[in-house]
Amino acid sequence: MAKFHKINTNAQPEINTGFGNNASSYGGRFINKDGGANIEKRGIKFLEKISWYHTMLLLPRWKFLLIILLFYICVNFLFGAIYFLIGVKSLGEIPSPSTLTDFAESFFFSTQTFTTVGYGRISPIGFLSSSVAAFEALLGLLSFALATGLLYGRFSKPVAYLRFSHNALIAPYKDINALMMRVVPFKNTNLVDAMANVTLGMTIEENGEKINRFYPLELEYSTVNALTLNWTLVHPITEKSPLYNFTKSDFENIKGEILVYIKAFDDMFSNTVVSRTSYTFEEIHYGGKFDPMFERDNSGNKTVVHIDKLNSFKHVSLNTYSAEAEIPTDDVVK
Amino acid sequence: MAKFHKINTNAQPEINTGFGNNASSYGGRFINKDGGANIEKRGIKFLEKISWYHTMLLLPRWKFLLIILLFYICVNFLFGAIYFLIGVKSLGEIPSPSTLTDFAESFFFSTQTFTTVGYGRISPIGFLSSSVAAFEALLGLLSFALATGLLYGRFSKPVAYLRFSHNALIAPYKDINALMMRVVPFKNTNLVDAMANVTLGMTIEENGEKINRFYPLELEYSTVNALTLNWTLVHPITEKSPLYNFTKSDFENIKGEILVYIKAFDDMFSNTVVSRTSYTFEEIHYGGKFDPMFERDNSGNKTVVHIDKLNSFKHVSLNTYSAEAEIPTDDVVK
Amino acid sequence: MAKFHKINTNAQPEINTGFGNNASSYGGRFINKDGGANIEKRGIKFLEKISWYHTMLLLPRWKFLLIILLFYICVNFLFGAIYFLIGVKSLGEIPSPSTLTDFAESFFFSTQTFTTVGYGRISPIGFLSSSVAAFEALLGLLSFALATGLLYGRFSKPVAYLRFSHNALIAPYKDINALMMRVVPFKNTNLVDAMANVTLGMTIEENGEKINRFYPLELEYSTVNALTLNWTLVHPITEKSPLYNFTKSDFENIKGEILVYIKAFDDMFSNTVVSRTSYTFEEIHYGGKFDPMFERDNSGNKTVVHIDKLNSFKHVSLNTYSAEAEIPTDDVVK
Amino acid sequence: MAKFHKINTNAQPEINTGFGNNASSYGGRFINKDGGANIEKRGIKFLEKISWYHTMLLLPRWKFLLIILLFYICVNFLFGAIYFLIGVKSLGEIPSPSTLTDFAESFFFSTQTFTTVGYGRISPIGFLSSSVAAFEALLGLLSFALATGLLYGRFSKPVAYLRFSHNALIAPYKDINALMMRVVPFKNTNLVDAMANVTLGMTIEENGEKINRFYPLELEYSTVNALTLNWTLVHPITEKSPLYNFTKSDFENIKGEILVYIKAFDDMFSNTVVSRTSYTFEEIHYGGKFDPMFERDNSGNKTVVHIDKLNSFKHVSLNTYSAEAEIPTDDVVK
Repeated sequence: MAKFHKINTNAQPEINTGFGNNASSYGGRFINKDGGANIEKRGIKFLEKISWYHTMLLLPRWKFLLIILLFYICVNFLFGAIYFLIGVKSLGEIPSPSTLTDFAESFFFSTQTFTTVGYGRISPIGFLSSSVAAFEALLGLLSFALATGLLYGRFSKPVAYLRFSHNALIAPYKDINALMMRVVPFKNTNLVDAMANVTLGMTIEENGEKINRFYPLELEYSTVNALTLNWTLVHPITEKSPLYNFTKSDFENIKGEILVYIKAFDDMFSNTVVSRTSYTFEEIHYGGKFDPMFERDNSGNKTVVHIDKLNSFKHVSLNTYSAEAEIPTDDVVK
Repeated sequence: MAKFHKINTNAQPEINTGFGNNASSYGGRFINKDGGANIEKRGIKFLEKISWYHTMLLLPRWKFLLIILLFYICVNFLFGAIYFLIGVKSLGEIPSPSTLTDFAESFFFSTQTFTTVGYGRISPIGFLSSSVAAFEALLGLLSFALATGLLYGRFSKPVAYLRFSHNALIAPYKDINALMMRVVPFKNTNLVDAMANVTLGMTIEENGEKINRFYPLELEYSTVNALTLNWTLVHPITEKSPLYNFTKSDFENIKGEILVYIKAFDDMFSNTVVSRTSYTFEEIHYGGKFDPMFERDNSGNKTVVHIDKLNSFKHVSLNTYSAEAEIPTDDVVK
Repeated sequence: MAKFHKINTNAQPEINTGFGNNASSYGGRFINKDGGANIEKRGIKFLEKISWYHTMLLLPRWKFLLIILLFYICVNFLFGAIYFLIGVKSLGEIPSPSTLTDFAESFFFSTQTFTTVGYGRISPIGFLSSSVAAFEALLGLLSFALATGLLYGRFSKPVAYLRFSHNALIAPYKDINALMMRVVPFKNTNLVDAMANVTLGMTIEENGEKINRFYPLELEYSTVNALTLNWTLVHPITEKSPLYNFTKSDFENIKGEILVYIKAFDDMFSNTVVSRTSYTFEEIHYGGKFDPMFERDNSGNKTVVHIDKLNSFKHVSLNTYSAEAEIPTDDVVK
Repeated sequence: MAKFHKINTNAQPEINTGFGNNASSYGGRFINKDGGANIEKRGIKFLEKISWYHTMLLLPRWKFLLIILLFYICVNFLFGAIYFLIGVKSLGEIPSPSTLTDFAESFFFSTQTFTTVGYGRISPIGFLSSSVAAFEALLGLLSFALATGLLYGRFSKPVAYLRFSHNALIAPYKDINALMMRVVPFKNTNLVDAMANVTLGMTIEENGEKINRFYPLELEYSTVNALTLNWTLVHPITEKSPLYNFTKSDFENIKGEILVYIKAFDDMFSNTVVSRTSYTFEEIHYGGKFDPMFERDNSGNKTVVHIDKLNSFKHVSLNTYSAEAEIPTDDVVK
């Protein structure tokens, strides 16, 4: 497999990435598009493997609300059944000929107790039903305490409201080429002191053995004071870059991945937020140039950012590097 | 436009500011006076563009309370209408001849359910009204859970309680001049490890093209251990400063902006807080000197800070630099 | 005032302390014993000067609970009065001959509404009383939402549970002397990566003018990996120290202050916590040595720290420095 | 005790560990297996020594719920007794011949008030019982506010979900040996920017006196970008290591401890989390090699981590160092 020999030997691999270098463990993708690690944990009980709090925070809103609704119905079914078994007489009711009516009465009494609304038309009389109702009211309050916490946790969780371009581009840059990706903040938050970290992950052959190698990709600017407009991450493909000498067909045939990691301080959350994504080689477009995303407002006193143009690019032809012998001098990219 | 040539070529521009250098995108102001970026986002749905949590946190108090009140009234109108449609009989009432009375009864029953106060004089009887009431009580509790979270988020949000002087001054400083701005903490908080960052943003002509340039302005002291009294940010206008050779009329005619960013650790919030502002050239007073803001208490055992004197300054004449050939020596400001 | 000449000219003052150097502003103490700055803010409205959240968080517990209780009573008095004015008939009651009884009934109805307990024996009937009750229930829920947030804020606020020795000592140290202070964590928290910063603040005469000067005091160790036992802060009084040549009577006669600042990561709060205190020269004991605070448990498998010994010290005589001409060599303290 | 002389004099001890160097204070273990310091605090009142918030957060779930339940029962017993003493007549009941029935009625009325469920079948009539009920409802709401905060604090507390291998190994490493420990994240969280710090703590003889000494153990890699798979901490035992020349019997006979400290940024909590553990010499296995913990999924597109293999290792023989005179060259481990 000749293509593996293309890796630029000037490039220094990075070792402490947190991914092993055992190629047989590589499962197609290191990082998923949404930023999570493509890893499964086994040999541990399901309940221990899950952080409930995190899981509840990350659920889509409709699932979260559905879970609350189902929980509410189930709990009241359970307690409704208990009151029904104790007997509606102990709720101060005359048993009706219809079992269903009695059960409904028990169920609704349960909801009135669990939510502590307690109208009182139905109310517990005997010792047993009073005890169950006292416990249910406690349980109800604690459940809503939990729900309060989860709701607060959900909307106060610091999140990096960043969108990445779907594609990375190999684009002309000065008189060489560069790998470019774009990111834009899309909500009304203020991100400052942003920092980007881009890593290439590939399976290569070394001494006849397939191993995973990770190479840091140096950026033109890896920090930015304030992330207000879009930010184009630019990795100039110099002779030191591990992507030096990669051709279009290399990107098509080799399995590799660009891992992107962004860290910033969100002064609305007053907290550090991070975001990750990855581009497989299939998601890299060879020969493109991003269209500008921002312009002056017509009125001339505002800058307008077009979020929907994030992935918009033109097809362009790339710079051809001079004969391989002629190495681009170091000061081209400084 | 000769004035653009004034820019000191000794000054090093800064590139990674997060603002583009495309001058045609400059919309009059980079940063608004309140610290937000002067940018509009388009090409994205309104609901996606907004972080609800942040928006609710930043609303003025009266608007926030008004929204809660309106929400409360609307929800009860809606549920009141449902109970009214089901019929007041199912609330255990004898329908009155007046529709309005019946609707009011339904509406107030709804409020009693939504807040879980549940007096019980009116209470659901049929299956339908009982179900709606059970759902409304759940909704009420979740709504107040949300309100609890928002209220907590509002008052616990780490905020830099800092006030900036309305004007920046060009003031005499040693035997040269300096750009000065003042900031003061105005609440009973403790700010430590404060750091300031001042940047000049201008549209200049380079190679016949108008571009935005940003220059870091070096401060005499850019950090302070504890922000207890007022802090005067001092940028000495040495020969290295991009403001070197700027005259009064330059500040009047050129469009430019001083971006100020302050970061500190608030040991009451136990969190990092940040604050930003900007001074357009129109807000710079050429030839002024801030009045002292603090003095000893009459009793002699306290220092008194006069917050209202933050922007108070005297008009003074500036130092004249010696002939341009004579460059102020480097050790003047060290 | 010859004593001001004692200041060691080898010592480098620090300028960015956040305190002014205008001696006429020095009010007896820079930092209060409890760590707050000894400063008063004027020229700003009382309500703007106060961060309500912080103020409520820092109140002693009994004051906080008293405020809640008084608020509860006042609100119910107010609403009770409204219901009373509307008339108890609209609460479904037959007006009693006693005004007091009617008012009590109104007051208790208000408490039942505000807390949403809503027994229902008394319940609103007319439109007016129903509306007021609907509003009061909303207000009640929001008030308790606020109380929930404040209670949570109070006990979750990251605090450095550190105690400082009441006195600082001038103690013998190797063959010279040192300024020593002790600090100990006194609760079941884990403090790691602790950092200390000690500054001397004094009013001195320079060029015939009285000014405030601040000198950083170098510590033997200014960081500690884990703050598990007590920590003795040691500033060796070498020839570079601003305290070099200070005699007992200097500490008695000069007005000066040692400012202490400690920062650590509390892994229970998962947050940075800070603590400050200050020692005036009157609180420095000249010639003392701290008693050990910790020892092995009798059973031999635990270390025991005696918090009550924090300020316990022995009176000892100090090392006498050799003739002033003979400067302690630099490697004595390294 | 010849074995104490084994300590490599090339190794530099560390002083600012937060543990004293007074050997007589060493109580068998510096850090407990769960990461807490093995220290007891005395000379301070129990209530002052405890941070209630932390204690409630760290309680096992069942204990926490039990405390809430017991508190609920006790409070209602207390208030039930008060209503009973006031007399059930003031609750609108006809006193029954049975004292128990009356007390039960009072108790359940109390639960209905404390939870604000307030059915209203029993409701306060006189001034006294109304006042007590008004106060109890307030107390109930504040108690549940507290419970809400504690519940939220419990599940939102940033925790490093890390597991350490039970044993540390002395394993062959290149042509020398190394001390190895393993750690693995076991929940669905994302840990980035992880940093490890390993210290050896021992009681040694110096100048005939027993003292505690701490030595930093240099790691092959002490940082890792993302903690996604397991992480093996490797301390190569070079001639600079304090463990150089340690034999199997040394580990068996000497009392010593390896302190491990890990710090990472959890991007789910958006917070720094830390974890500590320690290995006594008895927990170090001399001559072992960890089995791999991760592999490719059968389907080939995921990496699978086997958490249960964390401590699984093979017994292997170690590399023998060449004659002590021949010092391993520095570049073996670089």
